[in-house]
Amino acid sequence: MPDAEDDARPVTISYIAESAGVSIPTVSKVINGRRGVAADTRARVEAVISETGYRKPSLGPNPNKLMELVFDELEHQWGLQIIHGVQRVARKHRMGVVLTEFGPHRGAIRYWIDDALARRPSCVVTVAQLSGEQRSQLKAQGIPFVVFDPSGELPEDVPFVGATNWNGGRTATRHLLELGHRQIGMIAGPGDQLYCRARLDGYRAALETAGRLLVPHLVVHAELTREGGYTAAQTLLSRPDRPTAIFASNDLQALGVYQAARVAGLRVPADLSVVGFDDLPIAALTDPPLTTIHQPLTEMAVAATELALALGRGERTQQVGLELGTTLTVRESTAPPPQ
Amino acid sequence: MPDAEDDARPVTISYIAESAGVSIPTVSKVINGRRGVAADTRARVEAVISETGYRKPSLGPNPNKLMELVFDELEHQWGLQIIHGVQRVARKHRMGVVLTEFGPHRGAIRYWIDDALARRPSCVVTVAQLSGEQRSQLKAQGIPFVVFDPSGELPEDVPFVGATNWNGGRTATRHLLELGHRQIGMIAGPGDQLYCRARLDGYRAALETAGRLLVPHLVVHAELTREGGYTAAQTLLSRPDRPTAIFASNDLQALGVYQAARVAGLRVPADLSVVGFDDLPIAALTDPPLTTIHQPLTEMAVAATELALALGRGERTQQVGLELGTTLTVRESTAPPPQ
Repeated sequence: MPDAEDDARPVTISYIAESAGVSIPTVSKVINGRRGVAADTRARVEAVISETGYRKPSLGPNPNKLMELVFDELEHQWGLQIIHGVQRVARKHRMGVVLTEFGPHRGAIRYWIDDALARRPSCVVTVAQLSGEQRSQLKAQGIPFVVFDPSGELPEDVPFVGATNWNGGRTATRHLLELGHRQIGMIAGPGDQLYCRARLDGYRAALETAGRLLVPHLVVHAELTREGGYTAAQTLLSRPDRPTAIFASNDLQALGVYQAARVAGLRVPADLSVVGFDDLPIAALTDPPLTTIHQPLTEMAVAATELALALGRGERTQQVGLELGTTLTVRESTAPPPQ
Repeated sequence: MPDAEDDARPVTISYIAESAGVSIPTVSKVINGRRGVAADTRARVEAVISETGYRKPSLGPNPNKLMELVFDELEHQWGLQIIHGVQRVARKHRMGVVLTEFGPHRGAIRYWIDDALARRPSCVVTVAQLSGEQRSQLKAQGIPFVVFDPSGELPEDVPFVGATNWNGGRTATRHLLELGHRQIGMIAGPGDQLYCRARLDGYRAALETAGRLLVPHLVVHAELTREGGYTAAQTLLSRPDRPTAIFASNDLQALGVYQAARVAGLRVPADLSVVGFDDLPIAALTDPPLTTIHQPLTEMAVAATELALALGRGERTQQVGLELGTTLTVRESTAPPPQ
């Protein structure tokens, strides 16, 4: 393959065809998202496109003015705040938002990429996990995308917007330490979710900064559901040296802690303090209202959409990834430990 | 204007121009959603189009395969279940969904109709209140629309999908009567919302069927919020003949009743039974889990989308409006009255 750096020729379709060792119509098919190209050929062409930085000549302003927003599954509480933020930015730029939920078993994922490419969107904001192949296809078409709150590892050049999960874990734990708690349990989330690991590491960091060590039996892993929190809290509360405070990895787990406390005859916060994570709308509606780490989902969606649209306008941004700050929202579920 | 019924001529643009007393280009502008037509002229042309049943000749299959979903403001809990149902049907028909939230002060409403017409959607499902003028514009373009759960009066020919609110009010009240309650309070919603009036009338009907009369001071009107429910419940619970059960017009109000009960030192359900309406996801998460009337929001959205798409394919449906059945979901907030 010719060396793009040293070569004076502009990067054209014929240059890509030559570099990839395929015909010009084949390159055209790949670029325009049409079928009839073998998977390995497509991958080779896309690799060249990616390496050369080729961009399809603009077809003029897109009359559709559309962007894509994709979810694996829309989750209660979460989903709506994200959509809210995207809509706020879309209104500012008078942009139509095509919303796709891949659905159970990710049914819509088979056709979404084809249909999205045919719609020629300005950009994509994805809460869903896109495959490496889908990311390549978007890249090959010059359609920028931003990953919302990635839960797994991403290549370094993939733009994302997340939240400061590690800091949030530290803040929650420090709040409990400052109230005087010494036996602080944690309900950790699934270990394969990076944001859960970050929250757990923040808990450990706050303890160590306070001159304490993480006590392994005070950490129980559970699913990020009310049921998960309930079972984990029962384990923690059945110990003779039961914790006087529990930091849950999300608000739903915290609701499970409430339930376990009631079953055990413990009052929140008099006998047991509880801190959640997320600050879902439900957190203010519980009885007692929940002290929790506020994750600025709407602002994260605003930032992700602004970034995606800027990339769609061809602007170069220094910063491809960013995390917005989490903050502590103190309500009525935390108090000093019982004497 | 010529009489379309008796006239043998097919309804064409020139026929409409003649009928409305305007030029053919003016009719064309109205039909194609372009600017430059005075409001009263546009209204006259749209009236003729509506009366003659003119439909723009199809431009062939729409390559975009888009439909529009519009909200005034996306509300927690509610919004997501509706989007869920729309997405389920959209996946089945491989249809892109452009989601628009008009937003605070209905900011996006100024441009939405123009942009939507330019996108040539197959159909529109609207949770938002569209103006008569907007409905006329959609009609003039042959874009069918279905109103989701209308809260106000609509012309009879406007297709809609709602829920059996009156029946739901009856079912909730009958459940409490069957448990043995005789003093049943109701927190009614704003009187200008038709679905709130229907729920209140259902309450009255159940009482009267049981040979009882509605006691005016046992009905308190309030906003459909937790705060509204809290204040109204305080009023009801401060009476010497306080009710042993309260039927709230929605789940958020019911959460306010929980709070008022706790403040008054009353246990739910031992001292006070509570029934909500909607069956939001939060209803199963409260402590105790809430007995409530299930409103099938997702199924309503499925039905509205299927209806809109069928109209978009040019199918004639007998039924332009329908209400899906509500059902009682018994959880742990209701019990026989205290002895």
